Amino acid sequence: MLESLFRPKSVAVIGASTKELSIGNRILKNLQDFEFKGPIYPINPKADEVRGIKAYKSIMEVPDGIDVVHMVIPAKFVPQAMADCGQKGVKNVIINSGGFSETGPEGEAIETDFLEQARQYGIRVFGPNCQGIINSDPDIRAYCNFTFTKPDVGFISIVALSGGVAEVIHQGFSQMGVGTRIYASNGNACDVTIPEIIAYLGNDDGTRVIVTYVEGLRDPERFMQVATAVAAKKPVLAMKAGRTQEGAKAAASHTGGLAKEDIATDLIFKKAGILNFSDEGELIQAAAAFATQPIPAGNRVGIITNTGGPAVIATDILVDAGLELPPLSDKTAKVLKETLYPEASVNNPVDVLATGTAAHYRACMDAMMVDDNFDCVFINFVTPFFVDTESIAKEIAEVNKQQRKPMVCNLMTDRRQWTETVRILQDAGVPCFALPGEAARAMAALVKYHRIQKRDSGTVKNYPEIEAQPAMEIVKNACKAGRKMLSAEETYQILDLYGIPAADWRLVSHVDEAVAAADTIGYPVVIKADAESIVHKSDMGAVALNLADDNAVQAAVNEMQANFSAAELRFFIQKYQPGGLEVIVGAKAEEGLGHALMFGMGGIYVEVLKDVVFNLTPVSDAEAREMIASIRMAPLLKGVRGQKGIDCEAVIDMIQRISKLVGDLPHIQELDLNPVMAFEDRVVVVDARIVL
Amino acid sequence: MLESLFRPKSVAVIGASTKELSIGNRILKNLQDFEFKGPIYPINPKADEVRGIKAYKSIMEVPDGIDVVHMVIPAKFVPQAMADCGQKGVKNVIINSGGFSETGPEGEAIETDFLEQARQYGIRVFGPNCQGIINSDPDIRAYCNFTFTKPDVGFISIVALSGGVAEVIHQGFSQMGVGTRIYASNGNACDVTIPEIIAYLGNDDGTRVIVTYVEGLRDPERFMQVATAVAAKKPVLAMKAGRTQEGAKAAASHTGGLAKEDIATDLIFKKAGILNFSDEGELIQAAAAFATQPIPAGNRVGIITNTGGPAVIATDILVDAGLELPPLSDKTAKVLKETLYPEASVNNPVDVLATGTAAHYRACMDAMMVDDNFDCVFINFVTPFFVDTESIAKEIAEVNKQQRKPMVCNLMTDRRQWTETVRILQDAGVPCFALPGEAARAMAALVKYHRIQKRDSGTVKNYPEIEAQPAMEIVKNACKAGRKMLSAEETYQILDLYGIPAADWRLVSHVDEAVAAADTIGYPVVIKADAESIVHKSDMGAVALNLADDNAVQAAVNEMQANFSAAELRFFIQKYQPGGLEVIVGAKAEEGLGHALMFGMGGIYVEVLKDVVFNLTPVSDAEAREMIASIRMAPLLKGVRGQKGIDCEAVIDMIQRISKLVGDLPHIQELDLNPVMAFEDRVVVVDARIVL
Repeated sequence: MLESLFRPKSVAVIGASTKELSIGNRILKNLQDFEFKGPIYPINPKADEVRGIKAYKSIMEVPDGIDVVHMVIPAKFVPQAMADCGQKGVKNVIINSGGFSETGPEGEAIETDFLEQARQYGIRVFGPNCQGIINSDPDIRAYCNFTFTKPDVGFISIVALSGGVAEVIHQGFSQMGVGTRIYASNGNACDVTIPEIIAYLGNDDGTRVIVTYVEGLRDPERFMQVATAVAAKKPVLAMKAGRTQEGAKAAASHTGGLAKEDIATDLIFKKAGILNFSDEGELIQAAAAFATQPIPAGNRVGIITNTGGPAVIATDILVDAGLELPPLSDKTAKVLKETLYPEASVNNPVDVLATGTAAHYRACMDAMMVDDNFDCVFINFVTPFFVDTESIAKEIAEVNKQQRKPMVCNLMTDRRQWTETVRILQDAGVPCFALPGEAARAMAALVKYHRIQKRDSGTVKNYPEIEAQPAMEIVKNACKAGRKMLSAEETYQILDLYGIPAADWRLVSHVDEAVAAADTIGYPVVIKADAESIVHKSDMGAVALNLADDNAVQAAVNEMQANFSAAELRFFIQKYQPGGLEVIVGAKAEEGLGHALMFGMGGIYVEVLKDVVFNLTPVSDAEAREMIASIRMAPLLKGVRGQKGIDCEAVIDMIQRISKLVGDLPHIQELDLNPVMAFEDRVVVVDARIVL
Repeated sequence: MLESLFRPKSVAVIGASTKELSIGNRILKNLQDFEFKGPIYPINPKADEVRGIKAYKSIMEVPDGIDVVHMVIPAKFVPQAMADCGQKGVKNVIINSGGFSETGPEGEAIETDFLEQARQYGIRVFGPNCQGIINSDPDIRAYCNFTFTKPDVGFISIVALSGGVAEVIHQGFSQMGVGTRIYASNGNACDVTIPEIIAYLGNDDGTRVIVTYVEGLRDPERFMQVATAVAAKKPVLAMKAGRTQEGAKAAASHTGGLAKEDIATDLIFKKAGILNFSDEGELIQAAAAFATQPIPAGNRVGIITNTGGPAVIATDILVDAGLELPPLSDKTAKVLKETLYPEASVNNPVDVLATGTAAHYRACMDAMMVDDNFDCVFINFVTPFFVDTESIAKEIAEVNKQQRKPMVCNLMTDRRQWTETVRILQDAGVPCFALPGEAARAMAALVKYHRIQKRDSGTVKNYPEIEAQPAMEIVKNACKAGRKMLSAEETYQILDLYGIPAADWRLVSHVDEAVAAADTIGYPVVIKADAESIVHKSDMGAVALNLADDNAVQAAVNEMQANFSAAELRFFIQKYQPGGLEVIVGAKAEEGLGHALMFGMGGIYVEVLKDVVFNLTPVSDAEAREMIASIRMAPLLKGVRGQKGIDCEAVIDMIQRISKLVGDLPHIQELDLNPVMAFEDRVVVVDARIVL
């Protein structure tokens, strides 16, 4: 659908300028310098030619159909120009100019205006206030962009609203000698969106890896949908900035968006199977590895080095990232002992020594490529002047060509002196890094994607026995009554309807009923004063814990009656549940995304350690299991120091039931089960709150 | 003392070779290419000249005195050559050849042999099995080294045993266009040591920042002493690899050292005031900033940018690192509103827009340099083709020259196209980085060094009332008796002598004594069976907790008497201390360094969270305070959720007393107070163990 945008056969520039330092000139220059394969049409009412290309007075005069029109003209002229393009049958318009919604209501009105024109004529609009696109495909060579990095042909595609960051990333690849496939920075993105571009790149065979940068997601649902589908096919690497409050504020000030803390984006990345980076350098380096390497089948790495220290650094980082360094198989060890220098270290890392030759490197690589102990190979290669480094590079290039297991190379050299060695490796697509840590982290990213691909996404349990209707009625009635919060009775009724085990409870109005209820429930009990006016119950003395007998119940009810004069005052009697482990299950609505579901340790753990994890609904069994395994205090759930663990399966079930509950009842803004008392054989909700 | 090594007036090469690809040739070439200021003497018995320089048959024939002799000859010839050098009055010998202690006992014997010769003649030996040194001082230009990076003149000195990592770091600076002062990689370091070199660099006025890489410390005490003194004068940046078990193993395999987990090095770095890095890239980038920038007076950063997204990334990283982004002062805001484009964002970050001019950048920098809200300035500078980037660079260079507040610059450009812009900034010593994250982390390192400089190292309390002698007697007697572990009685006696509060205790042999002791101590009590044969007390049923009365004591003693038949069986009666918070204080001997002192949360926290911190003895009051503030559960110590906190001052006192205790009694290998029960108004040791 975006074919004619990303693979244009012809490009026109409305606002083509004869001034060298203008965008209307630069785009023409970039198209020329990049050797665009189609005709270029400068539109300029006053010039006969621009940059040596015949110019036209108006778009209407262009003799042929046009796939892409750039507009580099003041905002106010854009709606009319759009109408002209519509008349002409133009397929896509890239608006490089600014002055639209990013500047305020006036600009926003113009944006609405031209968009209406575009929709009427079926024109797709890219931007406005954007850099544009690049496609390095040799058949296309479209540099429809005013930025300055001239990419080599490659396999990485970059997509981001922010031209600044897209360009930084692009420049990073260029400096590494790594090529780019498609580059797309769409600024205000009033029509063609990021998810739409990602979907296009997912289907573009020339794109092997997609890199994106976001400061927030406009349409999280659509993003999730597209990213999930694409990330299953090829690696999608993403970075979200504005993670800190200050960062979010900075992002808001340049996008005109809202400054808000945002956990949802990370959760979307995770759920969609996107590799999430918080360091743009790491993202660039990982992309370089994905561009040319197969995905490893596991996490076991073999290291080949000709210098000691850098291999130690790499080892630390690989191990920290969860990779393993198994020993060499006997066969590999035997071969290498016969081949390498006697002083070489035949372990993992293999140290072939600084004097190690091309034959030595080749023997190591060949052995590791067939050694079942290894899933990937890490090469440390310093270039001493006394060995033939070009022949070593040729062997590495040769083995890389076989694409049997992924390789990365930490190439420690002076790129200005060892130009031919560098060229051999780069031309062969060996991902080369200048530091052991960079290479190690890129390797770790490959393994991480393997893990994502192999992960069990589990099954979302359906619970067919649950009827949503009665619960929906409760919620609707509360909404109708204008209430923001469900009463305890309503809350526990809904939990009951969803089969979520809560401590046995009764709601009563009088002291006698309270005693009777306590007798039925069985002692000890808890009593909570229940009235809409009583919000912070424990602070207000509205909770009496661990009441052992009828007398204690009477005393507690009487005292509450004396303290709270609310007309509608009632008493919530509940079985007291001492001795369990306090956990929390919660849910919070995320716009356009369902809910973020939370699990964590309760009590002081949530307060001091913030030991909680999140996942987006619907949460599958495997996801629920992973949630409870990934809190820091997880070993406590299994039992430590002779203490018994808790019934994890029951927690997993509860998480899934809550996931279904909030899925069925989208009016729920917040739901908190805090705490849930977890025992060896059961879990029981002892306090719950639902906000609409 | 190392003056003649690092500032040689003349250099000879024993083993000078006419073969281009040999080390004996390369060192001459490097000296020539780097334009060494003194005479070079190739020593070669067969050639009249090497690389166009007159050669001598033997070192004895050299007409003048020689400061540095390289030896590039087989190991077995080194002792004799050393004797010759001694005769000749040579001051320093750099042995580039290998084949010594790194290869095994035979090589070790040769090393001992030549070292004896060297000591006899007062020759200092650098290496063996090493790269050598470089000094870029324009008066010296000594490239006594066979490596390949040709440094610019600069202010950063590099020192490391590992030539591989030293060279990676050196190359990193070179690629960034950042100069080097002194480079020293001393391989086996049989004579001239890393601490000695660091001490020299500390006194070298041309060195503004010292960078070192270690895989372990040979003489930690000396390192600590030197590093503490030097780091107080100038920043010392260090990285330790071999952090993981696998990394330590890799390090051991190339250094011939022992693979061991090592926390001491990090503690030494911290105590000495060294900036500790776990990423070599970050270390390189931070050093580049330290080389030319003043140290900030605080953590408040102002950001100037001409593009949005990269400023958001930088903001996130700066804030994560503990920096603050205060608002602009009214005065700054007013000036900038008058100066910048109306669409510019006059906040922090200030966005001057991509079209922002040199005058705009200058106004921002000038304003921030005098604005009391800021301690440092972060510049984001993308180079659009449509602005005069060279004039912007000139303003940045100009402001940098004033050295009022530190600046870093994230320069987002194509270095192959914007060569002049890059040159202007580099020549002016503006630290330029290619990514916002890199620049931000370098800025954060400057602020971190400010914090280290300003930190209160506190006072080590002397406790003059404590007498060490009686405690020493106890330890000595146990040592004499060949015991590895002190008895409970001895342990608690020592704690008493050091004024460390322990739960009241008695040691008795009979049931009647036990009852009497319990009555004196007051119920409830704990009883532990005490005999050398009973090691894991709780597992063996040798502990009875919370005994409430005489009967319980009798029953417990009788049962233990029945279970344990040891002749020397006694009973340790102690006051039971329920309801406190369990903390741990411990100490472990670190060879050559005193002890590593530990503090942490006890119970499940230490088990599950490993929530402990360490510091080296002697621990000052300020350090003890910082220790208890830096565990993850620290808020719990202060009290959360209405729970009372603990007596932190008493813990601080206990830590210091333990610090003195292990300082006085160096025989102690391990000491564990686990747990210490901490209450609102006191702390009490309830179990203790001392291993000799």
